[in-house]
Amino acid sequence: MAVHHLNEEVQGNFHYTIGPYSKPVMTVDPGDTIVIETLDAFGGKIRDEKTKPSQVLEFPNVNPLNGPIFVKGAEKGDSLAVHIKAISPRGPQPRGTSCLIPFFGGLTGTKKSPTLQEPLPEIVYKVEITEHDIIWRDRIRFPYDPFVGTIGTSPEIDSINSLTPESHGGNMDLPNVRPGNTIYLPVNTDGALLFVGDCHATQGDGELCGVAIEFPTVTTLDLDLVKGWSIEWPRIESEEYIMSVGSGRPMEDAVKIAFRDLISWMEEGYGFDRYDAYFILTQTARVRIGNMVDPNYSIGASISKQYLAE
Amino acid sequence: MAVHHLNEEVQGNFHYTIGPYSKPVMTVDPGDTIVIETLDAFGGKIRDEKTKPSQVLEFPNVNPLNGPIFVKGAEKGDSLAVHIKAISPRGPQPRGTSCLIPFFGGLTGTKKSPTLQEPLPEIVYKVEITEHDIIWRDRIRFPYDPFVGTIGTSPEIDSINSLTPESHGGNMDLPNVRPGNTIYLPVNTDGALLFVGDCHATQGDGELCGVAIEFPTVTTLDLDLVKGWSIEWPRIESEEYIMSVGSGRPMEDAVKIAFRDLISWMEEGYGFDRYDAYFILTQTARVRIGNMVDPNYSIGASISKQYLAE
Amino acid sequence: MAVHHLNEEVQGNFHYTIGPYSKPVMTVDPGDTIVIETLDAFGGKIRDEKTKPSQVLEFPNVNPLNGPIFVKGAEKGDSLAVHIKAISPRGPQPRGTSCLIPFFGGLTGTKKSPTLQEPLPEIVYKVEITEHDIIWRDRIRFPYDPFVGTIGTSPEIDSINSLTPESHGGNMDLPNVRPGNTIYLPVNTDGALLFVGDCHATQGDGELCGVAIEFPTVTTLDLDLVKGWSIEWPRIESEEYIMSVGSGRPMEDAVKIAFRDLISWMEEGYGFDRYDAYFILTQTARVRIGNMVDPNYSIGASISKQYLAE
Amino acid sequence: MAVHHLNEEVQGNFHYTIGPYSKPVMTVDPGDTIVIETLDAFGGKIRDEKTKPSQVLEFPNVNPLNGPIFVKGAEKGDSLAVHIKAISPRGPQPRGTSCLIPFFGGLTGTKKSPTLQEPLPEIVYKVEITEHDIIWRDRIRFPYDPFVGTIGTSPEIDSINSLTPESHGGNMDLPNVRPGNTIYLPVNTDGALLFVGDCHATQGDGELCGVAIEFPTVTTLDLDLVKGWSIEWPRIESEEYIMSVGSGRPMEDAVKIAFRDLISWMEEGYGFDRYDAYFILTQTARVRIGNMVDPNYSIGASISKQYLAE
Repeated sequence: MAVHHLNEEVQGNFHYTIGPYSKPVMTVDPGDTIVIETLDAFGGKIRDEKTKPSQVLEFPNVNPLNGPIFVKGAEKGDSLAVHIKAISPRGPQPRGTSCLIPFFGGLTGTKKSPTLQEPLPEIVYKVEITEHDIIWRDRIRFPYDPFVGTIGTSPEIDSINSLTPESHGGNMDLPNVRPGNTIYLPVNTDGALLFVGDCHATQGDGELCGVAIEFPTVTTLDLDLVKGWSIEWPRIESEEYIMSVGSGRPMEDAVKIAFRDLISWMEEGYGFDRYDAYFILTQTARVRIGNMVDPNYSIGASISKQYLAE
Repeated sequence: MAVHHLNEEVQGNFHYTIGPYSKPVMTVDPGDTIVIETLDAFGGKIRDEKTKPSQVLEFPNVNPLNGPIFVKGAEKGDSLAVHIKAISPRGPQPRGTSCLIPFFGGLTGTKKSPTLQEPLPEIVYKVEITEHDIIWRDRIRFPYDPFVGTIGTSPEIDSINSLTPESHGGNMDLPNVRPGNTIYLPVNTDGALLFVGDCHATQGDGELCGVAIEFPTVTTLDLDLVKGWSIEWPRIESEEYIMSVGSGRPMEDAVKIAFRDLISWMEEGYGFDRYDAYFILTQTARVRIGNMVDPNYSIGASISKQYLAE
Repeated sequence: MAVHHLNEEVQGNFHYTIGPYSKPVMTVDPGDTIVIETLDAFGGKIRDEKTKPSQVLEFPNVNPLNGPIFVKGAEKGDSLAVHIKAISPRGPQPRGTSCLIPFFGGLTGTKKSPTLQEPLPEIVYKVEITEHDIIWRDRIRFPYDPFVGTIGTSPEIDSINSLTPESHGGNMDLPNVRPGNTIYLPVNTDGALLFVGDCHATQGDGELCGVAIEFPTVTTLDLDLVKGWSIEWPRIESEEYIMSVGSGRPMEDAVKIAFRDLISWMEEGYGFDRYDAYFILTQTARVRIGNMVDPNYSIGASISKQYLAE
Repeated sequence: MAVHHLNEEVQGNFHYTIGPYSKPVMTVDPGDTIVIETLDAFGGKIRDEKTKPSQVLEFPNVNPLNGPIFVKGAEKGDSLAVHIKAISPRGPQPRGTSCLIPFFGGLTGTKKSPTLQEPLPEIVYKVEITEHDIIWRDRIRFPYDPFVGTIGTSPEIDSINSLTPESHGGNMDLPNVRPGNTIYLPVNTDGALLFVGDCHATQGDGELCGVAIEFPTVTTLDLDLVKGWSIEWPRIESEEYIMSVGSGRPMEDAVKIAFRDLISWMEEGYGFDRYDAYFILTQTARVRIGNMVDPNYSIGASISKQYLAE
């Protein structure tokens, strides 16, 4: 049960794509703890409110990720359990960044759904973050409710940019990946190859403008391996619920993926009849929209554990 | 402040389309209370668990609605405020119905998105409902958390079937239309012409299989008129939040409608700058999926009132 | 085989919604011919290139339709066959109109898919139309290739605005509804109640900016009744092909509707095995996008008659 | 102007992902000709009509591609012009394969849009192909109208599986990539790294069941480099038209990408005013659906060259 420190120096170059083609920065055993220095989604390039995002961001090199972390014994067909232990802010104040990026966000035409209209203005907010709250401005403060925006294991042969969520996880921007919870990720390649980054100090459902409160952190994870548990999409477990995560477009397809997977989990993991699960979710499910702004939308569908205890 | 009783006899024929072409069953003043005997979404035709929905339902005559109720003084450009006061179950046990209807639901091909696959099996559940809980079976009970599934005012010239939500409200299946909350609906025609029905004893997000716990009720509403407040989409207010409702397809378009309207509400009703509202919703919004099974999907986007108090 | 003249005087008030609630302007027998004076989609209100569409159009009263025409003997479960015989331009030059309407069109945010961006500029083109060509400007001329943009029969209980295509037909904006071809429409109510209007002098696939070359016409139709042929969606027949039309959102759902219906037509009308039809369409089908700008998108999926002759 | 032969032996291992991480099999100069032995989309594993696709296909290792071909001098910001010269069938008869694969196709639930329904049956067709026609069965023959289903250049840092079309090209399944036409692809990395495969002997719009007439070929391409011409999406040129290709979900987004790009091409390449292009496409554009079955849908939007000559 070793503790590994993946600080910026150990990391060296950060990664902008999640795949099997990067050399692991670290090899760990199941059961180990990793303490990671993450960058913010802009690699710290948006230093003040006068910076224009369009001038400093160089696509596709945005959303830098730590990793890959090689987990000994992980093979295709296993699942990697990542327990989110803690997320602490780091770096000088104001540590937080939100902004409008041209043709990116929930209420603008985008590269994936273009129009002929002019872009929205570029606006940048730099905000102070403590482990208590986020000071948006004098009288508006948001509670500190951090989570990991991007976390994923390597696909088998593809490499997926760090902005796109898919079945391997990735940029889900789902607030349920928060301290206290566990996310299970499919293992598609030897060592699982975990990538992590893009923490948010808080975020509303959907990440409407495209940019939450982005910040650099010290993030602590415990890793475990579930041998022989083959999952297709990320799954999350808290004390109160189990949740399946779907990512796709249009949004209803992401919701269908999440619910279809949750029914499979209820069948295989808890002994439910398929249609019984379908009915019970109809009456009790909770759905959370992670993001409606990334190349795929991410959705979590969950059921309270009280209905699983039968 | 009269109290009107719209029982089944007063109602006479129920309606399956929401439009300006039906004769009002009742005329009321703003401030009045209406106590309504609603039918369940199947008009009571699914009497036991052996009934096949496909044999007793006759489209488009499903989802019967009470009304229209003519509200004196209501004119195009006003809004109708409907305060949900109480929803009580009525009729002999088992009062509740859920079922699978061929080619209807969230995890099946549908008439709006057909495939060549065979339909899912027709299954019917009849369940006991009290004001305390719903007995799904011996050890699984759902809390009684009732709401109005279908509520809407007449469009100006169209008439929209009672299964379809749109800007006039309609079959939103959004649990936030619950006792204690107020829903504002656009007035498009003289008298507003309110239609109500389709109460659910509880429902999960998305109404996954297409049919919540449907039941006949006594539903009590207070009506008010907001003169000169022109709204485009339904809005909901509770003690804790304000919410805009969008209905459309694909689901991201319904979400965009809801958020775009909520920003307008924050601008006009609370003095926010447009982009400030956009940013604050990014960090704090909550989104609820009403249904993902009707001809349009319905979404509520909300913000806590704590952020409106500035 | 009478010939009826539905000129502007006979029509009187034009209609902006297609439903069973309007009094027929004319009653005809199957086999009769109707010669109709249609208005352009703006009811002639856009008179010159200085007119701002947003100032003269009054939603929902746009896209005026002639009718309803009552066809004797038509009952629910029949189909109405409408043979498009001829479409001739009428009125003083420049007879044609195209324009950009704020928040309407294929490359802009819309009311159904809103953003926070500013609208595109309002631009109006008035163009001369003859039965030979359309003079866009000096050296750009488009061939005269007219068709009926909006044609539909009444729904059973709903009334659908003249801008929205659905299973009853309506605002499909599909160029295949052209002279020489026949469109079959479902009969949902006694007399079928046919509405017609919105002719286009030409149009590209998708009607990209939202407004084709709109013009007033004299349109000649032959009507026939196919007793006992119950269809769910519009179908088109030319000398070369048969085509099913689907309208919906997102666009893939409209395509699925069209193909699903075409397979049914091949099974029931031409004796194909279901999967054989599926395979043969995979290799030979042609798909045409009518519109990508209306509240529902319209798609025609067709197969050459050479493959039906087996 | 050398001629290179990329036969199966030279190729060695085929590729199932398009990215910068594979070693080039060949280095060529702009102006060179490449004669390629392509496999069918199943790598020849579906040998007869009794084979079950689900038993022989091993995802993600389907749709094998030749390449990558390194083009000297190609750098990020250039475009690669690929002239399709000829496509000839090869291998013993019956050379062609079409089939139904569980949960894959246009009229079935899929992994990207799942339902609870059972899959369609697995059916396989093996068909004879000559350069004249395809013998579906005795009296049904399809004309030989071959094209390249999958062609793309490497993304900059990602690697995209051979089933997915995106801005780099890939599995577009667009019949316009046919002999006589030129496809322009963005160069994102040194040498462009061209991958090619998945030829179809014919295909209808949309590739409805998911599998066209797949066959092994000898495909001849001429390669050219357009230095400094930076394009975002694939573009196609024939004698008659220019076409932009968009791939995405939902389908309307793919259409928007294609049209937005075509307007840019008309502006930059032919001197059109932006809104003039928007209007002229509204009246004259042709849209072709390549596929409606792959992880992204592919659409070509085109304009006749007669309107570009102004």
